[in-house]
Amino acid sequence: MTGFVSFIGSGPGDPELLTLKAVDRMGKADAVLFDDLSSGPILSHAREDADLVGVGKRAGRPSPKQDHVSRLLVDYAQTGAKVVRLKSGDGGMFGRLEEELVALREAGIEYEIIPGIPSAVAAAAAAGIPLTRRLTARRVQFVTGHDVSGKLPDDLNLQALADDQATTVVFMGKRTFPLLVQALEAHGLPLDTPALLAEAVSTTNQALHRSTMGELAERLSAEIGSAPALILYGPLAELHDV
Amino acid sequence: MTGFVSFIGSGPGDPELLTLKAVDRMGKADAVLFDDLSSGPILSHAREDADLVGVGKRAGRPSPKQDHVSRLLVDYAQTGAKVVRLKSGDGGMFGRLEEELVALREAGIEYEIIPGIPSAVAAAAAAGIPLTRRLTARRVQFVTGHDVSGKLPDDLNLQALADDQATTVVFMGKRTFPLLVQALEAHGLPLDTPALLAEAVSTTNQALHRSTMGELAERLSAEIGSAPALILYGPLAELHDV
Repeated sequence: MTGFVSFIGSGPGDPELLTLKAVDRMGKADAVLFDDLSSGPILSHAREDADLVGVGKRAGRPSPKQDHVSRLLVDYAQTGAKVVRLKSGDGGMFGRLEEELVALREAGIEYEIIPGIPSAVAAAAAAGIPLTRRLTARRVQFVTGHDVSGKLPDDLNLQALADDQATTVVFMGKRTFPLLVQALEAHGLPLDTPALLAEAVSTTNQALHRSTMGELAERLSAEIGSAPALILYGPLAELHDV
Repeated sequence: MTGFVSFIGSGPGDPELLTLKAVDRMGKADAVLFDDLSSGPILSHAREDADLVGVGKRAGRPSPKQDHVSRLLVDYAQTGAKVVRLKSGDGGMFGRLEEELVALREAGIEYEIIPGIPSAVAAAAAAGIPLTRRLTARRVQFVTGHDVSGKLPDDLNLQALADDQATTVVFMGKRTFPLLVQALEAHGLPLDTPALLAEAVSTTNQALHRSTMGELAERLSAEIGSAPALILYGPLAELHDV
């Protein structure tokens, strides 16, 4: 007898942004494996007797390795358990979902994938910013600001990212943002392009800071802080109370 | 006394993919204005005595003009009503959210924006496809396949869209896809790039068709059908049972 794994995007942090399907699966789970950003009040939907296992990777702190997480997931499922694997935002977007799917498949364990509200989408909603606009912002793109070693990836498509007719959201990019801005400026993106720093989106610590590419790069050169953050830039980033 | 408007992303169609916050607001609303794709079982969360007003724009059929929708929204709110404005997917992504925000603001009516599961994110989850992959797919982009007149926009960033290191999702692009593929091929994207056609995502009519850019363009040249659809392409589009 083998178990079953529900991969669940738990959204940006606000437990009210869980889907009905996520709440249903949490209420039935024997074990819940969660990341740092899907902890706290979100876990209140789990059964009281469920195993709650933190497998977070917090920037700058030691954390379980990916293969250890995959192993745990397989081990729990092989006991016959109903397992929920919570990933913050949507698991398919910068969530290392694929590695865990592969591990389950190799072990012959069935799973389902339940989408969640991407943190970028929640950040835009919190700031009152639409991600697209007819005629002038028909493309929206999400990109990660660091590679496996924490540096700015050296193979970014800078032409795509310097496009002032798109809305761009950079995930995990506070530390590398000053370098990214230099590279984008060299590809023609003006330093006065509107930019929004969104920290701890949808939580009680949420902070939204409206700025420009140039100013935000300066700010983040001086101080980055520890809050999880997104950076949204492009023509729509300056909107608020539209 | 003025009312209040909750803009709610109702997700791709499955009522179980509504957020808890969306369900809460629907249960309190005096009036619910909804699009075609946020109708049906989603509306079961509304009060029995709430006004349910369809304001859909179905491709190819006459539909209320955008300014008529904005006017309706303002009129309802000015009666003092709690209004829910449902938009399929996430309202900020190709949902014409901005026009309605502007109308409310000009009328001095308060509002909130509740994010929803983008249909592109739900399509990927349904197909078992992660949208990103470390090293080889660090960027994901969403773009609309038609302009105000229904044609392929003539100012698309084709270099960005022909990037084989990104995952791209085209919204409302079935009709123009053959032309888009021609343009992307001219910008270097191979015709055998994996592509997924996802129709009526998360509903009982969901259909997923795995193909390549070239084959899918041929298929859609012959027959496009009437189901709402997304097209996802890039290196990850061929994955299933990863």
